[in-house]
Amino acid sequence: MSATLKYQEKELKLVGTRPLRPDGVDKVTGRARFGADYNLPGQLIGKVLRSPHALARIKSIDTSAALALPGVKAVVTRDDFAEMPDEMAAVGELMINFRDVTRNMMAREKVLYDGHPLAAVAATGESVARAALALIKVEYEVLPHAIDVVEAMKPGAPLLHEHQYTQGVKPKPDRPSNVAKRLEFGHGDIAAGFRQAEVIVEREFNTKPVHQGYIEPQACLASYSADGQAELWTSTQGHFVFRAQCAKVLQMDVSKIRVTPTEIGGGFGGKNNIYNEALAIALSRKSGHPVKMVMTREEVFSSTGPTSGANVKVKLGCTRDGKITAAEAELNFQAGAFPGSSVNQASMCAFTRYDLANVRIVGHDVTVNRPKVAAYRAPGAPIAVFGVESVIDEMAKKLGIDPIEFRLRNAAKEGTQTYYGPKLGPIGYIQTLEAARAHPHYRAPLGPNQGRGVATGFWFNIGNETTCSLNLQEDGTLTLMLGTIDVAGGSRASMAMMVAEELGIEFDRVRPFVGDTASLGFNFLTAGSRGTFASGMASVIAARQVIEKLRQRVAKIREVPLEAVAWKDGHARPVDATVAQFAPMSLPEIARMAGKTGGTIAGHAEINAQGAGPGFGTHIVDVEVDKETGAVKILRYTVVQDVGKAIHPAYVEGQLQGGAVQGIGWALNEEYVYGEDGVLQNPGFLDYRIPVASDLPFIDTVIVEVPNPNHPYGVRGCGEVPIIAPMAAIANAIENAIGLRLCEQPLSPPRVLKAIDEAAAARR
Amino acid sequence: MSATLKYQEKELKLVGTRPLRPDGVDKVTGRARFGADYNLPGQLIGKVLRSPHALARIKSIDTSAALALPGVKAVVTRDDFAEMPDEMAAVGELMINFRDVTRNMMAREKVLYDGHPLAAVAATGESVARAALALIKVEYEVLPHAIDVVEAMKPGAPLLHEHQYTQGVKPKPDRPSNVAKRLEFGHGDIAAGFRQAEVIVEREFNTKPVHQGYIEPQACLASYSADGQAELWTSTQGHFVFRAQCAKVLQMDVSKIRVTPTEIGGGFGGKNNIYNEALAIALSRKSGHPVKMVMTREEVFSSTGPTSGANVKVKLGCTRDGKITAAEAELNFQAGAFPGSSVNQASMCAFTRYDLANVRIVGHDVTVNRPKVAAYRAPGAPIAVFGVESVIDEMAKKLGIDPIEFRLRNAAKEGTQTYYGPKLGPIGYIQTLEAARAHPHYRAPLGPNQGRGVATGFWFNIGNETTCSLNLQEDGTLTLMLGTIDVAGGSRASMAMMVAEELGIEFDRVRPFVGDTASLGFNFLTAGSRGTFASGMASVIAARQVIEKLRQRVAKIREVPLEAVAWKDGHARPVDATVAQFAPMSLPEIARMAGKTGGTIAGHAEINAQGAGPGFGTHIVDVEVDKETGAVKILRYTVVQDVGKAIHPAYVEGQLQGGAVQGIGWALNEEYVYGEDGVLQNPGFLDYRIPVASDLPFIDTVIVEVPNPNHPYGVRGCGEVPIIAPMAAIANAIENAIGLRLCEQPLSPPRVLKAIDEAAAARR
Repeated sequence: MSATLKYQEKELKLVGTRPLRPDGVDKVTGRARFGADYNLPGQLIGKVLRSPHALARIKSIDTSAALALPGVKAVVTRDDFAEMPDEMAAVGELMINFRDVTRNMMAREKVLYDGHPLAAVAATGESVARAALALIKVEYEVLPHAIDVVEAMKPGAPLLHEHQYTQGVKPKPDRPSNVAKRLEFGHGDIAAGFRQAEVIVEREFNTKPVHQGYIEPQACLASYSADGQAELWTSTQGHFVFRAQCAKVLQMDVSKIRVTPTEIGGGFGGKNNIYNEALAIALSRKSGHPVKMVMTREEVFSSTGPTSGANVKVKLGCTRDGKITAAEAELNFQAGAFPGSSVNQASMCAFTRYDLANVRIVGHDVTVNRPKVAAYRAPGAPIAVFGVESVIDEMAKKLGIDPIEFRLRNAAKEGTQTYYGPKLGPIGYIQTLEAARAHPHYRAPLGPNQGRGVATGFWFNIGNETTCSLNLQEDGTLTLMLGTIDVAGGSRASMAMMVAEELGIEFDRVRPFVGDTASLGFNFLTAGSRGTFASGMASVIAARQVIEKLRQRVAKIREVPLEAVAWKDGHARPVDATVAQFAPMSLPEIARMAGKTGGTIAGHAEINAQGAGPGFGTHIVDVEVDKETGAVKILRYTVVQDVGKAIHPAYVEGQLQGGAVQGIGWALNEEYVYGEDGVLQNPGFLDYRIPVASDLPFIDTVIVEVPNPNHPYGVRGCGEVPIIAPMAAIANAIENAIGLRLCEQPLSPPRVLKAIDEAAAARR
Repeated sequence: MSATLKYQEKELKLVGTRPLRPDGVDKVTGRARFGADYNLPGQLIGKVLRSPHALARIKSIDTSAALALPGVKAVVTRDDFAEMPDEMAAVGELMINFRDVTRNMMAREKVLYDGHPLAAVAATGESVARAALALIKVEYEVLPHAIDVVEAMKPGAPLLHEHQYTQGVKPKPDRPSNVAKRLEFGHGDIAAGFRQAEVIVEREFNTKPVHQGYIEPQACLASYSADGQAELWTSTQGHFVFRAQCAKVLQMDVSKIRVTPTEIGGGFGGKNNIYNEALAIALSRKSGHPVKMVMTREEVFSSTGPTSGANVKVKLGCTRDGKITAAEAELNFQAGAFPGSSVNQASMCAFTRYDLANVRIVGHDVTVNRPKVAAYRAPGAPIAVFGVESVIDEMAKKLGIDPIEFRLRNAAKEGTQTYYGPKLGPIGYIQTLEAARAHPHYRAPLGPNQGRGVATGFWFNIGNETTCSLNLQEDGTLTLMLGTIDVAGGSRASMAMMVAEELGIEFDRVRPFVGDTASLGFNFLTAGSRGTFASGMASVIAARQVIEKLRQRVAKIREVPLEAVAWKDGHARPVDATVAQFAPMSLPEIARMAGKTGGTIAGHAEINAQGAGPGFGTHIVDVEVDKETGAVKILRYTVVQDVGKAIHPAYVEGQLQGGAVQGIGWALNEEYVYGEDGVLQNPGFLDYRIPVASDLPFIDTVIVEVPNPNHPYGVRGCGEVPIIAPMAAIANAIENAIGLRLCEQPLSPPRVLKAIDEAAAARR
């Protein structure tokens, strides 16, 4: 069903508490099985040969020497995969061009980035597989490449795809371009808005690609049967989506691939799409053996993820009393080697915290010789918001208005018309701003070279296709089979809590599992902060079906009308002593009799969850800038966010903290460094620096709960909003500390020091 | 729901054809994973210390030396398992005494048979585990034992259980006995019946215990988490029943154990109950590691299965024109070390092929110092029928009536009142007799020392608790998650065929799986020939739900009333051009739009299937007796059976052939040989001789189809009936060949030769 369950306020016993997650003990004791922990008898090891060039035509691939090496059981190249049509195909809500997917998985005419796969081998061991890779002879015609988004957009830039003409411009361009798409959003009269403005701020920003930085590299194990059935174990954010993608590129029936998701050591959007999975199945098909493929960290960096680097221009017009009259932005996003950056979402998120009469955003999706970008937590939004919230801050300062007060004067609220479509429903943006302003952090004193910054973020959150099955077992305990991956956030606990709350029983009585693709119908990715919202809704629907059946059974057993049976505190009871009198029955009592009263009791939901509630957050950060080194230290960090309802507050806090920390890394240190030759120079955690615990203060959180009216417990989703604000908040704090507006991410010591030195030179 | 779907005759496209089974290729290529094919990182090997005595009191068990051996990680004994109440508890339709289950799993006060477990160790490898077993010191007080059923029934026989008083006799006995239960069935006036009789035949028969003889020994792998969750992989006929049994004896919540069934290399009733499974979980709990336990063939023979050996007395009275006036039997069944033989089912099956006015059966369930018996394909029935059909044959001969004609004159038919309860519905017994009589085999000439025998069998067949989920995938293919184990019979294919038939699509579009216990609600064992009947009914219910939803979606998409949409040949079409006109939509077309029209489409069934149809079979066998050696050669064998409807005739034929072959083995060679010391002397396939291909002719089959009115395709179930008749049919054939009525199973060369020699001596 196309489901929305309305929010009902009620007394809660379990929702809002903090029980231990069902996967917790296994994860701390090492029993949990991640992608690389699966093995099959007789398995081979698969390895991938990757391009050493940023752009080159493939003149030939000779695998004969590799195949002749003892222990090598199969080699696949471009010749092993069918050509796919150049069109967008839907996989759930994802629109995917499988022509590009097959080419990203295995280069065809050209290699398009350092790390681009062009052959894969399966051998009896890893050393044999590596030796085989070295024996594959590839003839390249190396071509000039384009790696910077601004450079790649220029006419005459080295071209990745000869068939690519910019979409979204009229008339149709007469020559191909690296600009895959131009898009535009907006409403009102932008020129009139700027004419009304008394103050205008305009800035240009540049960000670098950053990686999702999950701890667990991609790992999978595939087994293909001689009758055309495949099994796949993989670390994924969406086993149904992986199945669909593998089926498509391997030209198999969907139901002939069974995908079992492993525990996942982080994803953050980076495990939404297949990399080695279809290669492993193809190698298994060719070799007749199971094939295991585990990426190295270097492969993860060079060939998966990252998010876009971008060039962002923002222009804002305001009246002197702090009313925004016009907001304009241009977002130029690197897509990597194939089109499909998140410039679309970034455009929609850029200004959607403000109630604006005149807005215009132009976005460009630009192919460059880098790995194809992947989603990364609120895809694209942090990039656009880095620019917008920096300009907002600068404007507030120019106007002499407190930055939170300035945002409040322009804040989006229920009824605000967005520039991309819907009117906003009940939202909690103003509440987060007010909570931030009231927080002691906002008034705490600052020392020398210290500064405070504020920024805010918005994310849509989504619902989408979701299924689950809730089975009452013969002792009255329940198993809950979920179809959305628990991407280490603890969502299994939240779903079990909602079911237990509905049934009025203890948390421990509901055992949640994530099922494989044969267990349930299609589930979309765990993405868009949809897990707890959509699977929660499905779980509640299933729980209510179970309650309905329990009441029916008791009505039958006690010989009373169904209407006389209420469900309360884990028992079927008379609705009211005047209607019927019967001894209450507990869940275990009814469960024991289920076989005899008509069979086991279950609830099932197959829904396309509607009514996701937008999320808003306000971040406050204090920094100290070391003027000698340019190092920025985070002194204090507070995340205030409206999550609708925190089912399990500890895990919501974890999301808020985790998002903020990833944003801090993005702001301060993370970046892909390419040489002149287009080769990635820092594919490892030693040279690509993500924040570690010793870099950070405890991240304080304030959970605001403005219930989403379209969820039974008011859930909005919370995983993405917290990564949006940090870059801007930190840039604003640095400006507050040292008076310099930095517009180039990362705000790393060399760059900060350079800005300080340049400012000092200018003053001299 | 408590479901019965009525039979509807219709044109069939798929049901009745012979597509390849989905598990077939994996089984012939070695990819299929059986119990011993599962492994986990860090696993230990578990081994069991078993009693060398038939009966002994355990004075002490000292495990300290074993525990001190390097590599030994845990030892469990009786002290690790809670005492369970001495009462029958329901697990689905099984009534189980968990006091006995815990004691059979791990001896407590006494060891009760050669092979009875009394300790289990988990160690880093098998050799260490074996060495540890040798270090366990057990002090026994060896007691006299009772191994023969007739001996064990005698007053003063060595007693297994001091607390055991014969049930079913009044007044309550004043002293304990090895006779656990006396039961009685019957109707009419047995004495009057024998007074009416003009001819009486009375005989006594003895059978030996035989093992189910599955090729795959019991094997399991268990992993227990520090937070009290367990996973179990095991070769089983009922993963939900195993889960229930483990939960009970380990005092865990049912939902905290997840049981994944492996492919199973035969069961035949022998894998209905736990042996090592709870020990493996207990060892994993104690050691903190996964524990794998694989039985040796010797362990399988000495400690699992077998079926009962029995003493059977049959008395039959008839008029000269061949009308049975009275039928009486006494069935004394070995239960093994704990009560619970199948004497109950044997009693009900003994005469239920005949329409009898006067019947009386007395049965005894007798504990002896042998392994606790387990179900074996039509449990108990072949034993009782060996006696009854031998006497029927003798009576026919005495009366000079053709044995099939004699049976026809007394045959049960629709409306026959059984002596154990129900009236029979539409059945096909007469049809099998007529088909056998018309078969060329029945008229084929015989040579010297050759003989022909006929015998018939009846089995109830059952329904019971069954669940399944059918999920339509986004490309229009379907996955069918089943909860009943496919015990190598090919039932997955049959279920997929019924679903494909309902939907009007190709077989290959429906991919069936057997789910683990977290995927579905409770399913009873694959036992009682219920698989294709009950899971088939559930699958059809689920398919019809899917069709209903498909029609609803198309009504919505095409904007026509639901009633205007028919489902036919895999398409939604207008019921009739006068009602509505719209372009038909195929299953893939609707599936592709499912997300947008309300979410994925699924059907789910949780039923207690009712209306199982009784099955009847008639067997014809030709033998040749080698008078020099006593060897009996099977020359020709024909099985005629009413199966209701053969969904997949090849797999039905396989059942008929397999049952006959197991019956032939039972008849001719199989037996447990114990020494005077109560120790099993032939625990292996070299000394326990099951038939191999070279022993046998091709087994011919004739499928009779009298539809079961309570199944949508008329299925009755077919797996058990074919093992019932062979023992009697072969004994009758031997009698026909050499004129000697043999009443002691097995009809092995020494025994046949002895009878020939004795007869010769008597003639001299």
